[in-house]
Amino acid sequence: MASRVDLNADLGEGFGRWRLGEEERLLPWITSASVACGFHAGDPRTIRRTLALARRYGVAVGAHPGYPDLVGFGRRDLEMDPEDLEAAVVYQVGALQGLAATEGLTLQHVKAHGALYNRAARDPGAAAAVVRAVQAVCPEAILLGPPGSVLLEQARAGGLTTAAEGFADRAYRADGSLAGRALAGAVLEDPRHVAEQALRLVAEGRVATLDGDDLRLEVQSLCVHGDTPGAPTLARAVREALQAAGVEVRRLGETG
Amino acid sequence: MASRVDLNADLGEGFGRWRLGEEERLLPWITSASVACGFHAGDPRTIRRTLALARRYGVAVGAHPGYPDLVGFGRRDLEMDPEDLEAAVVYQVGALQGLAATEGLTLQHVKAHGALYNRAARDPGAAAAVVRAVQAVCPEAILLGPPGSVLLEQARAGGLTTAAEGFADRAYRADGSLAGRALAGAVLEDPRHVAEQALRLVAEGRVATLDGDDLRLEVQSLCVHGDTPGAPTLARAVREALQAAGVEVRRLGETG
Amino acid sequence: MASRVDLNADLGEGFGRWRLGEEERLLPWITSASVACGFHAGDPRTIRRTLALARRYGVAVGAHPGYPDLVGFGRRDLEMDPEDLEAAVVYQVGALQGLAATEGLTLQHVKAHGALYNRAARDPGAAAAVVRAVQAVCPEAILLGPPGSVLLEQARAGGLTTAAEGFADRAYRADGSLAGRALAGAVLEDPRHVAEQALRLVAEGRVATLDGDDLRLEVQSLCVHGDTPGAPTLARAVREALQAAGVEVRRLGETG
Amino acid sequence: MASRVDLNADLGEGFGRWRLGEEERLLPWITSASVACGFHAGDPRTIRRTLALARRYGVAVGAHPGYPDLVGFGRRDLEMDPEDLEAAVVYQVGALQGLAATEGLTLQHVKAHGALYNRAARDPGAAAAVVRAVQAVCPEAILLGPPGSVLLEQARAGGLTTAAEGFADRAYRADGSLAGRALAGAVLEDPRHVAEQALRLVAEGRVATLDGDDLRLEVQSLCVHGDTPGAPTLARAVREALQAAGVEVRRLGETG
Repeated sequence: MASRVDLNADLGEGFGRWRLGEEERLLPWITSASVACGFHAGDPRTIRRTLALARRYGVAVGAHPGYPDLVGFGRRDLEMDPEDLEAAVVYQVGALQGLAATEGLTLQHVKAHGALYNRAARDPGAAAAVVRAVQAVCPEAILLGPPGSVLLEQARAGGLTTAAEGFADRAYRADGSLAGRALAGAVLEDPRHVAEQALRLVAEGRVATLDGDDLRLEVQSLCVHGDTPGAPTLARAVREALQAAGVEVRRLGETG
Repeated sequence: MASRVDLNADLGEGFGRWRLGEEERLLPWITSASVACGFHAGDPRTIRRTLALARRYGVAVGAHPGYPDLVGFGRRDLEMDPEDLEAAVVYQVGALQGLAATEGLTLQHVKAHGALYNRAARDPGAAAAVVRAVQAVCPEAILLGPPGSVLLEQARAGGLTTAAEGFADRAYRADGSLAGRALAGAVLEDPRHVAEQALRLVAEGRVATLDGDDLRLEVQSLCVHGDTPGAPTLARAVREALQAAGVEVRRLGETG
Repeated sequence: MASRVDLNADLGEGFGRWRLGEEERLLPWITSASVACGFHAGDPRTIRRTLALARRYGVAVGAHPGYPDLVGFGRRDLEMDPEDLEAAVVYQVGALQGLAATEGLTLQHVKAHGALYNRAARDPGAAAAVVRAVQAVCPEAILLGPPGSVLLEQARAGGLTTAAEGFADRAYRADGSLAGRALAGAVLEDPRHVAEQALRLVAEGRVATLDGDDLRLEVQSLCVHGDTPGAPTLARAVREALQAAGVEVRRLGETG
Repeated sequence: MASRVDLNADLGEGFGRWRLGEEERLLPWITSASVACGFHAGDPRTIRRTLALARRYGVAVGAHPGYPDLVGFGRRDLEMDPEDLEAAVVYQVGALQGLAATEGLTLQHVKAHGALYNRAARDPGAAAAVVRAVQAVCPEAILLGPPGSVLLEQARAGGLTTAAEGFADRAYRADGSLAGRALAGAVLEDPRHVAEQALRLVAEGRVATLDGDDLRLEVQSLCVHGDTPGAPTLARAVREALQAAGVEVRRLGETG
């Protein structure tokens, strides 16, 4: 199977007084950061601080646009029509490009957040809106999404580069979707378990599901959520397990 | 005096369900539009609609960043520290660049809005923050501000192109600042009066103040606020008066 | 059929600089006002101004809570869990009670707004959350909702007083729901048509649907949306048609 | 000097996904909680959770209204006119009354937050707005503020009950104001130092200032900020020091 993989985390997800995650402890272990863009989390200064940190650690950055829902952290589905959605994604990616420019960075990738990620994975109208937004504002960026999703399909049809993503710290259901966070066992917190799931995803292209099934999933990037408790420990466990197995952990954009 | 001038208005200042101003009736008379960026007004779709209209009318566009204060429409002073302010301006300008790109437009200028405009005109820390933001994210854009302001001074020192702006529809005080909107007579609504003030500003480089003084003000751009009642009529009166006097009304960026 | 009816409109739906509707021209014709509570529209001062106007015109006031979605004006469905929803309704109704107290008013009724109105009409979990909120914070208020809805059913089971509401200015579908605003013909703007639909609803308890059917709907209150173009004219047409037909137009709370 | 004092902390200052402070560890040591109202922090569900916790620990609750500035956490001055401010305080206190009612609680007190606290302490227009708001919506609540402030003076003149408050965990300047948080040494984090300052405030009615002066300050309530690092440890140290010195620590509203 794959001999290399990207390891990404969602960062910049504080807001003003509120911090989230332990970014300085997490950054040494990841290769890409998806940075919140202000709609579900991330005010301009918080975002900039995260971008500066990512640069210092040599971590590639991408935009992580979400629904305009601070109080729900972008994790609740919102009935946005495709034109609103397209403009909202353009706005957020543009804002992040601006802040990245102040740190001398360009965006490696775009990855939708939370409920928008889930919606764009399965809803052709939402997927098309996200694809149009990326085409318009950063056509050279890599679009991340779940393997086999309508989003990645439409993105490739539209000429974008894509990368399929798997989750190291989340339980899968039989249909390949993530178990909802409200469900017990949906968020994996045991480093050994997380590292094991990561390694199987990369080395075998398979993942066990909550129902006891075994799913085929080919991924180019692995995600550890920045706000999962103990995220730095999980990311380190994943990275060390991958490297011990001879898998190269490297940012998406880098050619071998 | 000047034989040409730019005529600008603030646009894109609705928000979701709420519309503001009569953009389609105003656009035929102006040469530049300063477009709200989402913090004091302007959601992504509203902004995009305004940008598309501006393009259709051949009107140049610029970013119009403000304080993060929707309910106060960015017209209340807010104690932002310079780092927050710089990041907030970068964020807003970046977002507007993204949306402008979807319409094939680039930003001609940047003009701060409301209380931020007033603050940056006189407060060196705020001015420096705005200048740094523009340098980082769109160094080729023209920075608008009041003639003689610390903002324009710092902008020129920092290598930016600047344009001094006068207000056709607002009363001036003896110190060159605008009379506060709460003051009776602060917003001029009589087309003849507005056209007259515009013409004197351009042809003589002078404006009468509320106190009966006469002020020297050299400007390269004239503003008619998009939300002043009857703005299209005012803009038309200004444009016709200027043209009748042989003044060329032309966007800032255009060379003769 | 009914010999009396309440005539209500949604008010207080501006936000800061943005006004919506012609409240002073609408208030003379209605008997109840559902006042926005700040989540989909309505900042504190706008709300208070509306409450003061309602008092001056002798119009009863109620709370009009919505989803926390200013940019979508509460008209987009949002996946709120019942506990969040209950707390959000309590918060909004409490805030409105506070502002009403400053004008010497108490709340006659509670009516959910937009997408929340539609959701609570058919979703038992959302309906229960709204009912619990009203029970906790203003158990003496009348809960408005569509006739036959799960909301009114649960409210009555929970000991609340209810009133069934019909829409004078919106087209109905065969299942008794409103045609979506995006659909042509969904919003009725012809005063004669609106008055006719109002009169039939009250006098016959029936309404024609978009598909040509005829629906049975018994209502105690009729709504004219405050933001429908020409709302004052529509409300006046409705009121005059009702009165000409001998129907008494009177606020809900008033006993004969 | 005083033989009893109230010990208060600011709580409910998370927002959605973001938590702030260790409320369950802090509540055992305090007697009153000032609960955020949604403008600077605190969404409805977070607020309700905090109210339920306060009830469980027998801690009295009050409203903690702030400026509408989530990203600035209400700690930046905002130029609100008195009518906007009055309505904003009424709105927030009303919302909290609603949520408190769901937990069977009534508001013991009102205490402005952050920059609004500082502004209302010295600005007669802002003070009058806060006083009018409390008079209208909860005239029986106790208004907290700094000793000798224009706020407490106006509140007493307006017939409200007041309580003067001192800060155990903040450094004072010679004029009795708090040293700005940006200043080194402004926030006290050493439990011994905090307990000592608390005890001197209560037992001697005096506090040492940053400049080396000694200030006279008579207080009925002591504050430990809920978001100061180690707040539970500080509150415990204060409470134990007070009790060891024979000072009774008791909520404001309780009569001996």
